[in-house]
Amino acid sequence: MYKFIVTIDCQPGTRDKILSRAPEAQAAARAEPGCIAYDFYTCTDNPDRLVFVESWADRAAHDFHMQQEHTTRFIAWHEQFHENLVFETIHAAG
Amino acid sequence: MYKFIVTIDCQPGTRDKILSRAPEAQAAARAEPGCIAYDFYTCTDNPDRLVFVESWADRAAHDFHMQQEHTTRFIAWHEQFHENLVFETIHAAG
Repeated sequence: MYKFIVTIDCQPGTRDKILSRAPEAQAAARAEPGCIAYDFYTCTDNPDRLVFVESWADRAAHDFHMQQEHTTRFIAWHEQFHENLVFETIHAAG
Repeated sequence: MYKFIVTIDCQPGTRDKILSRAPEAQAAARAEPGCIAYDFYTCTDNPDRLVFVESWADRAAHDFHMQQEHTTRFIAWHEQFHENLVFETIHAAG
């Protein structure tokens, strides 16, 4: 399994703009064969912070994901609202 | 740094009961010398899922945290509402 957390500090007040396209992006990603989890979270005490927690069967499944048109479209959408982004892998349990 | 993500699937409808004591728990944890981050997140499309993302200077800082009365009190509080809990370490960036 290939699992990671992406922590996005959004430009003030833009978090919900990003999330406005989340359902569509999540449906498309979750429909991909190697997608185990593709979940988004909002910080309880920082309205400008989001985390994406993604689990993929393996690196190849994630590479496939990154080549999809829906992925590049969603990244192009949310990237414009970033102030900072940190990518960290997770030691997947089990 | 010692960083991890705790994914909690709450019993239906109990997420906000857990979060009702979050501010107090977060203030106490963040006041500890080795605490780098102690952030809680709610899932955007699953009202019964929470993640805690914690960053500690090192294992000893986290061990100290776990021995504090405010920590054991908060864990005892939220544990009663769990359906499932997964603990996974994060490869902290930088």
